Amino acid sequence: MFKDIIQVKNNPYFEHFVREMKQRDGIFLCTIATTKTAEIEGISAAGATPELRRYTAQADVEYLFYEKPLTIPEIPKNPLGPPSPVIITKAALNLMKLPIIIIDGGCEVKAKVPQYIFRQKGLNCITTGNAFDDGELLFMQAFKLAEEFSKFSRYVVLGESVPGGTTTALSLMTASGIDAFGRVSSSMLENAHDVKTMVVKRAHDAAKINNSSIYDDPVSVVEKIGDSMQIINAALAMRLCNDVPVILAGGTQMLAVICLMNVLEKFKGYKIKWENISLITTRWVFEDKTADFKGLSELIAPKATVLASALNFSNSQFSALQMYEKGLVKEGVGAGGLAGAGFLAGRFSFGELMKEIERLYDKMS
Amino acid sequence: MFKDIIQVKNNPYFEHFVREMKQRDGIFLCTIATTKTAEIEGISAAGATPELRRYTAQADVEYLFYEKPLTIPEIPKNPLGPPSPVIITKAALNLMKLPIIIIDGGCEVKAKVPQYIFRQKGLNCITTGNAFDDGELLFMQAFKLAEEFSKFSRYVVLGESVPGGTTTALSLMTASGIDAFGRVSSSMLENAHDVKTMVVKRAHDAAKINNSSIYDDPVSVVEKIGDSMQIINAALAMRLCNDVPVILAGGTQMLAVICLMNVLEKFKGYKIKWENISLITTRWVFEDKTADFKGLSELIAPKATVLASALNFSNSQFSALQMYEKGLVKEGVGAGGLAGAGFLAGRFSFGELMKEIERLYDKMS
Repeated sequence: MFKDIIQVKNNPYFEHFVREMKQRDGIFLCTIATTKTAEIEGISAAGATPELRRYTAQADVEYLFYEKPLTIPEIPKNPLGPPSPVIITKAALNLMKLPIIIIDGGCEVKAKVPQYIFRQKGLNCITTGNAFDDGELLFMQAFKLAEEFSKFSRYVVLGESVPGGTTTALSLMTASGIDAFGRVSSSMLENAHDVKTMVVKRAHDAAKINNSSIYDDPVSVVEKIGDSMQIINAALAMRLCNDVPVILAGGTQMLAVICLMNVLEKFKGYKIKWENISLITTRWVFEDKTADFKGLSELIAPKATVLASALNFSNSQFSALQMYEKGLVKEGVGAGGLAGAGFLAGRFSFGELMKEIERLYDKMS
Repeated sequence: MFKDIIQVKNNPYFEHFVREMKQRDGIFLCTIATTKTAEIEGISAAGATPELRRYTAQADVEYLFYEKPLTIPEIPKNPLGPPSPVIITKAALNLMKLPIIIIDGGCEVKAKVPQYIFRQKGLNCITTGNAFDDGELLFMQAFKLAEEFSKFSRYVVLGESVPGGTTTALSLMTASGIDAFGRVSSSMLENAHDVKTMVVKRAHDAAKINNSSIYDDPVSVVEKIGDSMQIINAALAMRLCNDVPVILAGGTQMLAVICLMNVLEKFKGYKIKWENISLITTRWVFEDKTADFKGLSELIAPKATVLASALNFSNSQFSALQMYEKGLVKEGVGAGGLAGAGFLAGRFSFGELMKEIERLYDKMS
């Protein structure tokens, strides 16, 4: 039916979701944060060096506004060459002309873009057992923001750029009792499962939490061992889905958001309209052999519509883009979800998107 | 034609403006800031005491989100009793269901609402000759934000809450060579023209500027003797009006914004689509006998559509609201412009608006 869309699992509400979404125009809401977790050796390849990784999120969103970063000299690259997935994001946004709304959920250095600021400071390493504070305030702000944005009656694509975020995602999933060790995706060629597992176990030990702590006080557990993006996007999605279709644009990190939504639904008694919730990632995450995206989706998101955009860079004229096929970059900044939104709404084909991606890459290099 | 709308002056583009606006839904974008100028004795009555006045802007926008302020215990009042005009704003927003977007242009204490933050710190008193810095960054951020919000194809109502703002408005107007001394409106019963004139003259002396300085470097002159709201709203209006109708919602302070737009049009060579610009204030500002709103409008805004909403509280069942008719409160937080938007778009009559205002007042007191 949609040749560029992969159904990751059985999706009971797929047709409902597409019908609701196609009636509307969209909005892109992207939450960024920096966490010291990303500075652990071997955790992330989002950004060429650990030093530059502190500015990856900021550079990503600056690129969306100015077609170049301002905080650092050039767009974040994987150490091995391929550019940040923000290039896919930007291409899809250009073709669809969606409004871009940035939420700073805690960047130590602030991006030079117009943005909602929900938290002034960056996040600590989760191994401290105390990653951030004011989680309830973050939740309330995101919830109230969603109330305003739902008035546009547009579908909303929720993205993120949080270096180190697959580790904080693993931390949240396992804290919720999901057996996710060794199954999450990564921005690295050799998925650093060992490092991630060790970091998460140290975090849970430091925070003195067990499998059930999160059901007693979910926000407080996320404050200890997760990240602020998880709370913000969960609150946004839960409120927005009452009125409009929501696309959680990402892979592992957005699965963690759904994981938190599950907990909050039980704990806070929210009624979540799962028929209006989808998660869309890239084919590279879906096919990642070092992870188990399908299995985790079935476990965590049985009711949400989970899809992957069939992006394929093997025929690109640029070798740096071809490297995406080697698994060097897989997802980020809402790339998979925005591509998927365009495919579902019939706004562009993969060929048209690829043309715009290559045009942007050519200007960049 | 519109029984609740007063044409303040000859408006060449009135019909064009209304036609463009009626085709769309709207957005409310409100910029807040605090300035030490407001702490000068006798300058402002926005807030019951000088101490509380530091939190008037924050309390105003908190009320829009929560129906109560969080930073201070109750909604700002004039020392003599009538509540902040935010009650009119809130009533109009409730009836029209417009999305509310807040921009913090420099509040010393941050409001507890989801908001764009363009500047971290509050503004100095203009008598220092150095009210704030980073004016070019504020301009750029506002301009880029307007680019995103123009994509909604909605008309935009630009409001403000800046205690002391009529004094910084007078300062900017006179710095642009407009003979505005003794002609601006005020939140006080006895308009404090003498105090305002003295403060402005001290500011201009301290900043070492004359009648023509602003034409050499407008942003730098506003940094010295104006306020950040003026730059932000001028940049927003200039960019938005390329694509959508814009309502500058306010009296004297929005005239100062138009004054700056005139200067920037000449200095920066921007082409401003004046046919898409209106300024809408309240009847209380229009009829203020201690000021000359009509004369200043003709001088500053010959091409913009300048209107006043014919609000009249004399028949209110609440005596605190009746005090509006004594000139104790006149305008603020976009009140006149939002009422006017509703009247022009046929979304409510004055009677319906009044009913909602009284309902809110009753809950508040």
